[in-house]
Amino acid sequence: MECLSDRSRSRLDRAPAHDRIPRRESLMRPLFPLLVALLLSACSTAALRGTGDLGIVIERGSGSVAVIDTTARSVLGRVEGLGDLSHASAVYSRDGRYAYVFGRDGGLTKVDLLERRIVRRIMQAGNSIGGSISQDGRLVIAQNYEPGGIKVFDADTLDLLADLPAAYGDGKQFSKVVGLADMPGNKFVYALFDAGEIWIVDLTKPREPEVTKFRDIGRQPYDGLITPDGRHYLAGLFGEDGVALLDLWRPELGVKKILTDYGKGTEKLPVFKMPHLRGWSVAGGRAYLPAIGRHEVLVVDTATWQEVGRIPVKGQPVFVMARPDGRQVWVNFAFPDYSQVQIIDTLTQQVVHTLAPGKAVLHMEFTPRGEQVWISARDDDRVVVFDTTSFARLTELPALNPSGIFFTSRAARIGF
Amino acid sequence: MECLSDRSRSRLDRAPAHDRIPRRESLMRPLFPLLVALLLSACSTAALRGTGDLGIVIERGSGSVAVIDTTARSVLGRVEGLGDLSHASAVYSRDGRYAYVFGRDGGLTKVDLLERRIVRRIMQAGNSIGGSISQDGRLVIAQNYEPGGIKVFDADTLDLLADLPAAYGDGKQFSKVVGLADMPGNKFVYALFDAGEIWIVDLTKPREPEVTKFRDIGRQPYDGLITPDGRHYLAGLFGEDGVALLDLWRPELGVKKILTDYGKGTEKLPVFKMPHLRGWSVAGGRAYLPAIGRHEVLVVDTATWQEVGRIPVKGQPVFVMARPDGRQVWVNFAFPDYSQVQIIDTLTQQVVHTLAPGKAVLHMEFTPRGEQVWISARDDDRVVVFDTTSFARLTELPALNPSGIFFTSRAARIGF
Repeated sequence: MECLSDRSRSRLDRAPAHDRIPRRESLMRPLFPLLVALLLSACSTAALRGTGDLGIVIERGSGSVAVIDTTARSVLGRVEGLGDLSHASAVYSRDGRYAYVFGRDGGLTKVDLLERRIVRRIMQAGNSIGGSISQDGRLVIAQNYEPGGIKVFDADTLDLLADLPAAYGDGKQFSKVVGLADMPGNKFVYALFDAGEIWIVDLTKPREPEVTKFRDIGRQPYDGLITPDGRHYLAGLFGEDGVALLDLWRPELGVKKILTDYGKGTEKLPVFKMPHLRGWSVAGGRAYLPAIGRHEVLVVDTATWQEVGRIPVKGQPVFVMARPDGRQVWVNFAFPDYSQVQIIDTLTQQVVHTLAPGKAVLHMEFTPRGEQVWISARDDDRVVVFDTTSFARLTELPALNPSGIFFTSRAARIGF
Repeated sequence: MECLSDRSRSRLDRAPAHDRIPRRESLMRPLFPLLVALLLSACSTAALRGTGDLGIVIERGSGSVAVIDTTARSVLGRVEGLGDLSHASAVYSRDGRYAYVFGRDGGLTKVDLLERRIVRRIMQAGNSIGGSISQDGRLVIAQNYEPGGIKVFDADTLDLLADLPAAYGDGKQFSKVVGLADMPGNKFVYALFDAGEIWIVDLTKPREPEVTKFRDIGRQPYDGLITPDGRHYLAGLFGEDGVALLDLWRPELGVKKILTDYGKGTEKLPVFKMPHLRGWSVAGGRAYLPAIGRHEVLVVDTATWQEVGRIPVKGQPVFVMARPDGRQVWVNFAFPDYSQVQIIDTLTQQVVHTLAPGKAVLHMEFTPRGEQVWISARDDDRVVVFDTTSFARLTELPALNPSGIFFTSRAARIGF
């Protein structure tokens, strides 16, 4: 049995016409509105329901998020007032009820998916690039460009627990922070763009962060990725070709450089969009990653971190996302091929299907067991849902300039 | 804002003392109880909350399940009347709100974790051994010993959609079904103990099951396992040594026999408990499995399916469970060592810690990101929660002969 919806509540509001009670019944008269108010206030407008099949779609045109349901494949409602949501991302509380949305403008907003309202919103930086949540769900961390560093917040209240500037060199300069990822044991790993360093912070005692620094890891790390098992951290380099690799199980071995050809190279190809490392996928012992400037997906053996293949695709890949079972890899592209999506079969290592979900495909999100994928087509103001077995278009939902799509199942995963 | 708890509701029940209204106020008098009933009925006793951090503990002594919260580390309540729960298991609806509990007596019970009540309960067989839920969450499947076969139910209503007897030989005999696991694409795979067969059923059209049969896969498969990526199906053999392996991505290659020494062997060791294959773990490209009759955990390379190592442990292992990040493997044991648990570090391949959670440890369940493990100690009537980084005992909760522990995060995983 569920709480009343808004509509039925209005109906009941009209029912107890207490002004029809004769004046002399003074004993009961004041009890009426009190009783109604008490009962109604006890009754939330939100319906009792599970949160495992919920998610949000970032609507960057309007600074709002659409709350969606992957079982009904519908938009449940919209939460507005989240500020500048270009390049926004989100993480979830461990119960799946609350999304923490990191805006590019430094805003951090805690959204209640059940009641579809903002619980709290703070401006925590001038320029921010996402965040993370600790393994135990108690700490939310923002990674900031300006001022350069990370900030640690209480996940319940969004109160600031620690401010950790990314000081480097003479200690008076502060680096942009990129590639923040959670690790087991309430630790986090991230890269310092300007400093060329990787830091691991242990937040077992949140107010007393313990930092381990790895220096000279390569020029200008621009993004980072932790493998699904939480063992390897990779930072892509912008200032040179190659990727910095840190084995988090054996940090004493230090940072190694791998894939030394990975980058812009010397051929001066036009690079329409520097693909994020979060667009990499690891499936079946192989990593699938977007080539930079080339119409190829690279295949890397994660045991040796050597390239073992290249798969030709339609355009410059941006996101290369593995279906949760690893049998398929879905690829979207930079301009001008950004209205198409291609699907690679990882068994045959070939493209098996091409779809045209809409104009300006920005993001894709799989349901946790992989039967559906949700794709945002920004310039068509819609999210399209596909069946990943038949490639059938299951439904289309309206959204306002949709970009990132984030499902609550991320709460249960490492490195999200 | 949440709905009223039971206690505050009782208080309000007493408040509107409508018999104090003078008789002549006939207009309003009947409205009072109606209004109160309407408002209260609209208000569930359950609190609005996320379901991502919920779970159940099977209490086999009392035919009940305890509903638990892994954030508060507490028992939220108890649901009774589930019949014989020896050897019971559970799967979850994709929203995480409902548990489907399969009892050994053939009972299938749908439990609402939020309202903590039975939604529906049916007796679907005489002797049952667990079940599964389809990738899209619409179908719940029971695997039965008696009558031998599987049954397909609508996950919403528990209405029977298909009954698929495990007929073999002359078609008049029916085999016990074991090792049922879900596959992508609303398919299921299972083994026929008496027939020595593996069947894949495609339930894209639930009322028209399409079955593919693999015959002569080995004598008496007694349990089955699907790898976490959903690719490989393994069936342990009771009637001979070895394991049957089917590559579900390439079923045309047929069933192969691997690990030909795995089994009871010829040495006639006392085997206190035949370990289930569900007690196997796959982590970092290796499978960890309980040796049969020996005080060892076997290590197998999942690329070649060859044994690559043996790790000595305290007793005959039963469950060998990998922490979600794969860095640790936790092992419990058969009688007489069943009050201890050992932890293997998968990097060094050695036991690094031994714990004594309580008498008769039957099951272990990790939180999805692995920071906690919940362990049932049946004969001490308690569940003990450990921090997996420090091995600290975080809390103990009372439970009535606890056995299986199942968290809602299973809804997001393949093969659970």
